[in-house]
Amino acid sequence: MLLNSDASGVYPIAPTPFFDDGKIDFNSIDRLIDFYLESGSTGATVLGQLGEAAKLEHEESVEVARRFISRASAIPVVVGVSAPGFAAMRALTREVMEMGAAGVMIAPPNTLRTDDQIVTYYRQAVEAIGSDVPFVLQDYPLTFSVQMTPGVIRRIVQELPSCVMLKHEDWPGLEKISTLRGFEKDGSMRHISILCGNNGLFLDYELERGADGANTGYCFPDMLCDVVRLTKAGKREEAHDLFDAHLPLLRYEQQPGAGLAVRKYVMMRRGLLTSAAQRKPGASMTPQAKSEVDHLLARLAKKDARAGKLVG
Amino acid sequence: MLLNSDASGVYPIAPTPFFDDGKIDFNSIDRLIDFYLESGSTGATVLGQLGEAAKLEHEESVEVARRFISRASAIPVVVGVSAPGFAAMRALTREVMEMGAAGVMIAPPNTLRTDDQIVTYYRQAVEAIGSDVPFVLQDYPLTFSVQMTPGVIRRIVQELPSCVMLKHEDWPGLEKISTLRGFEKDGSMRHISILCGNNGLFLDYELERGADGANTGYCFPDMLCDVVRLTKAGKREEAHDLFDAHLPLLRYEQQPGAGLAVRKYVMMRRGLLTSAAQRKPGASMTPQAKSEVDHLLARLAKKDARAGKLVG
Amino acid sequence: MLLNSDASGVYPIAPTPFFDDGKIDFNSIDRLIDFYLESGSTGATVLGQLGEAAKLEHEESVEVARRFISRASAIPVVVGVSAPGFAAMRALTREVMEMGAAGVMIAPPNTLRTDDQIVTYYRQAVEAIGSDVPFVLQDYPLTFSVQMTPGVIRRIVQELPSCVMLKHEDWPGLEKISTLRGFEKDGSMRHISILCGNNGLFLDYELERGADGANTGYCFPDMLCDVVRLTKAGKREEAHDLFDAHLPLLRYEQQPGAGLAVRKYVMMRRGLLTSAAQRKPGASMTPQAKSEVDHLLARLAKKDARAGKLVG
Amino acid sequence: MLLNSDASGVYPIAPTPFFDDGKIDFNSIDRLIDFYLESGSTGATVLGQLGEAAKLEHEESVEVARRFISRASAIPVVVGVSAPGFAAMRALTREVMEMGAAGVMIAPPNTLRTDDQIVTYYRQAVEAIGSDVPFVLQDYPLTFSVQMTPGVIRRIVQELPSCVMLKHEDWPGLEKISTLRGFEKDGSMRHISILCGNNGLFLDYELERGADGANTGYCFPDMLCDVVRLTKAGKREEAHDLFDAHLPLLRYEQQPGAGLAVRKYVMMRRGLLTSAAQRKPGASMTPQAKSEVDHLLARLAKKDARAGKLVG
Repeated sequence: MLLNSDASGVYPIAPTPFFDDGKIDFNSIDRLIDFYLESGSTGATVLGQLGEAAKLEHEESVEVARRFISRASAIPVVVGVSAPGFAAMRALTREVMEMGAAGVMIAPPNTLRTDDQIVTYYRQAVEAIGSDVPFVLQDYPLTFSVQMTPGVIRRIVQELPSCVMLKHEDWPGLEKISTLRGFEKDGSMRHISILCGNNGLFLDYELERGADGANTGYCFPDMLCDVVRLTKAGKREEAHDLFDAHLPLLRYEQQPGAGLAVRKYVMMRRGLLTSAAQRKPGASMTPQAKSEVDHLLARLAKKDARAGKLVG
Repeated sequence: MLLNSDASGVYPIAPTPFFDDGKIDFNSIDRLIDFYLESGSTGATVLGQLGEAAKLEHEESVEVARRFISRASAIPVVVGVSAPGFAAMRALTREVMEMGAAGVMIAPPNTLRTDDQIVTYYRQAVEAIGSDVPFVLQDYPLTFSVQMTPGVIRRIVQELPSCVMLKHEDWPGLEKISTLRGFEKDGSMRHISILCGNNGLFLDYELERGADGANTGYCFPDMLCDVVRLTKAGKREEAHDLFDAHLPLLRYEQQPGAGLAVRKYVMMRRGLLTSAAQRKPGASMTPQAKSEVDHLLARLAKKDARAGKLVG
Repeated sequence: MLLNSDASGVYPIAPTPFFDDGKIDFNSIDRLIDFYLESGSTGATVLGQLGEAAKLEHEESVEVARRFISRASAIPVVVGVSAPGFAAMRALTREVMEMGAAGVMIAPPNTLRTDDQIVTYYRQAVEAIGSDVPFVLQDYPLTFSVQMTPGVIRRIVQELPSCVMLKHEDWPGLEKISTLRGFEKDGSMRHISILCGNNGLFLDYELERGADGANTGYCFPDMLCDVVRLTKAGKREEAHDLFDAHLPLLRYEQQPGAGLAVRKYVMMRRGLLTSAAQRKPGASMTPQAKSEVDHLLARLAKKDARAGKLVG
Repeated sequence: MLLNSDASGVYPIAPTPFFDDGKIDFNSIDRLIDFYLESGSTGATVLGQLGEAAKLEHEESVEVARRFISRASAIPVVVGVSAPGFAAMRALTREVMEMGAAGVMIAPPNTLRTDDQIVTYYRQAVEAIGSDVPFVLQDYPLTFSVQMTPGVIRRIVQELPSCVMLKHEDWPGLEKISTLRGFEKDGSMRHISILCGNNGLFLDYELERGADGANTGYCFPDMLCDVVRLTKAGKREEAHDLFDAHLPLLRYEQQPGAGLAVRKYVMMRRGLLTSAAQRKPGASMTPQAKSEVDHLLARLAKKDARAGKLVG
């Protein structure tokens, strides 16, 4: 089951669950995947930017990927393989593809500047991992400091057939989606899947611009699934109503650096994670931050009952 | 009427109004100021980052500042004087202070990196403009790429008595407010005013953390005034309800680069600006973007009647 | 006498001379220009990156440019007009062109990243200053953090006929010169003048790659003129011998940030400047740094007698 | 034999030798180490920035380190362990320390900005690798975009006893050495070894400022050893004469990105490497670049006979 350019729906970005002592919590991996499936997710992405991949020893990364992939047998799992060098990227790619990953996600190193540098980097990455491995192009300038114009994305898509999906998290990004879909219409670029990240901050309008869904880690992936479903069903105002109800919390979780702690905290309170712990170095939440999130959840619960079903 | 560290409430960041042909629209300046006053604004900031200051000839800058200041006689006007060199900064500061500005705002040049470089820059800036001119320290890493720790802000505040206000737009920024207020409590830093920018994206909780108000350009400054007023009056849920109603539009307007076009468009539709035009180089809105903003306004109007009173 | 694409030889980058009290030293401007002429310079560039332009009030900039231009009647003077906005760039351009400047030099703002952003910036700059004003494209990634590929330079050259010269200071930069000259040979780019900056650190081989000369501020512009002359006369080893003799000092002067103090110090000791003073904020030399430069000069004097003719 | 703060002399930064087909050339490792020993090197650093570490699979890195360490039994070998996460850093550190490395070198990730971020990073790194492992602090702003003030270095040295050496490659950097040695004199910082990088571009004066030697990869480490020896013996002018003779080539090799190809090319011509090949992605030399280096070697050979003893 390899990833292809027809992918759509919601691919949650999975956190890596730890116990308070830093050990990997494999049972929470199972719970996460089961929950993604129940929510209607169509795939999942693991060991991404927010999966604390850099805090795992190599063998641990492999075991985490293996557990996600084996539990998620019904849906494709994409594995983040970004690395400082192509040797490590190739090694991890081989291992995860052999164990059944659907494809890999590659973020650009933050030293890339010119259009040519970006295209060259992805050309070399494909040479390293093999052109038979489908890959997701991650376009996230806020975090990676690499700016890809629509023209650069088109060059990559046209030159590298194994690029099947764009993880779109440029900001602003709405016109970019329209431009890319325009390239497809005018025949200058083949079709690729566009799933949106950036915690879903613009998912409401991104879908209307032509995105195929979401590929992000918001702590209510079930809401993301509902918004995609409602939008595709033409229930526009209903989709916006649900999205807007979540926006105060979603915005709070989207804070750079601080967001993962919020996400794990809410997922713990939703019963998905045993612990909200991050491995060091990791941000933690102050009591006041926790009370703010609790307040946001309480307010959200008035509009979405799922936010009221909490533990702990 | 010089700015001091007791400043609070809302200081809208004013856009510079142009006609479609690029000429300055002085009557819209009057309308803006009148509207700020009616809304309960306690000050205003002009020629800031979003005031298109760099597109004005020097004489035009002076005339724009003069018009804002003279119309706003009842409230203090802060003028942005950020410049590539201290000579230009000093020259503009002198002119605007002589015409009655309450103080100036200084953003850090984006080449500053170390703590010492940042502190040194502000020391030299004060030497240039004079220690008798109150200034606002602008902490906006997303745009200026300069990261000021709370400790650096404290060093600046303690060393430079003319620093009376922090325009706080770090992101994440809630803990920073708590830390700075903690410095005041433990006696290691004198009190300064903290007004929040970043389009007000976290104003709801920033006020609860100890901020004194807002200093940003959201197209409904009247909402910002209401939220500050309600929060200070202890009407917490009411404040959040109003804020949350605006959040979908506020988030849309907060997009870097694209936001000013949205802001001017809505202000034109609210009857405040004759035209939404920016001088070149400026972003414009596609028809689809306009329809999205119209959609956001229509949805907002169900909760805040002010969003339904539109022209054009 | 407008700058055109046939420009060659040496255009020294002139410092702005100050007295110890910070006042402009106009007589040293005359001495500098006279010295440039005696040395065989074919032009001069003023108010550049190292001309401390940002420390001048606008009227001062105009007077400095005027003095350089009027004294240098026999050779073309290029004026740096880089500015944070096009309004200021246009205003200064108009003034200096009216007083007889040969053209202007425009550096890219350090926020530009993508190829399209760079090309667009220069297109808009030309719209602002007028397409009848010849301009020098400054390619200096180390200082401006803007990376222009040869392809981007070609786009600018082909789209904007008023681009007549490249101030080449990319590092490494030798292959870039070969690539650009290759574009001229294969007919894909019209001819432009390429003068080299970066303090001349690679001038020896840049000339052999096809550069037309130097456009930099090394404290011995007479050496630069000699190296260009010797190279053009086919005296290769003689050119390298002279260049190599200067390299230890040249390298010392090329240190970012610290270099201007060295340059002004040597120029003072050569009798060209009354004072080595910079306006604040400026780097100064420690006694140890001065003794190092004196040591370098003493060693150089054994090979180039000009280094032994010092005052003070 | 653990690295300590008395280290001095020359620790060449070793390239990783490959055959033309990309396989590791272990015999050239032996030749390199033997040559370092003959030249009077007092240590060596492997798998550094220029050791192409990122292009090695993990097992290959371990084997390369092992070969260097076992061959260099008489001198300490430092191993670069910079990694995107502490897990990988810890794993590699453990392996190489167990096989006899003298210590490790840690470069800062290029996302660090504030003083506190830098100090915190090294604190966490030491927590990860263990406080019993001596480490080298790499201060190389040009490549890593991280600016460490002398005060920050002092904080790291004072807080972390396992920091025993500074690889100094700031630019400009002479005053920094004086400042750090001043900290030692005034008792505010304990003594550490300072070895200089940046291809030795300022080694002549760095030694006079108080540096203990060189830690860089220039293709004539024997010259570096001689310059250190001559300087320590008080033969100042002789040291400068030798250094100046090499400066034209040294400067050419110091070009960012392009330098490794030059270095490997010269080392191949000196009979140290079987091949100048880099693994992909790597820069290669054009024929014109090779002829320039040959020209530089021929000129150098007139002053240093070692440059005339070439093969191939």
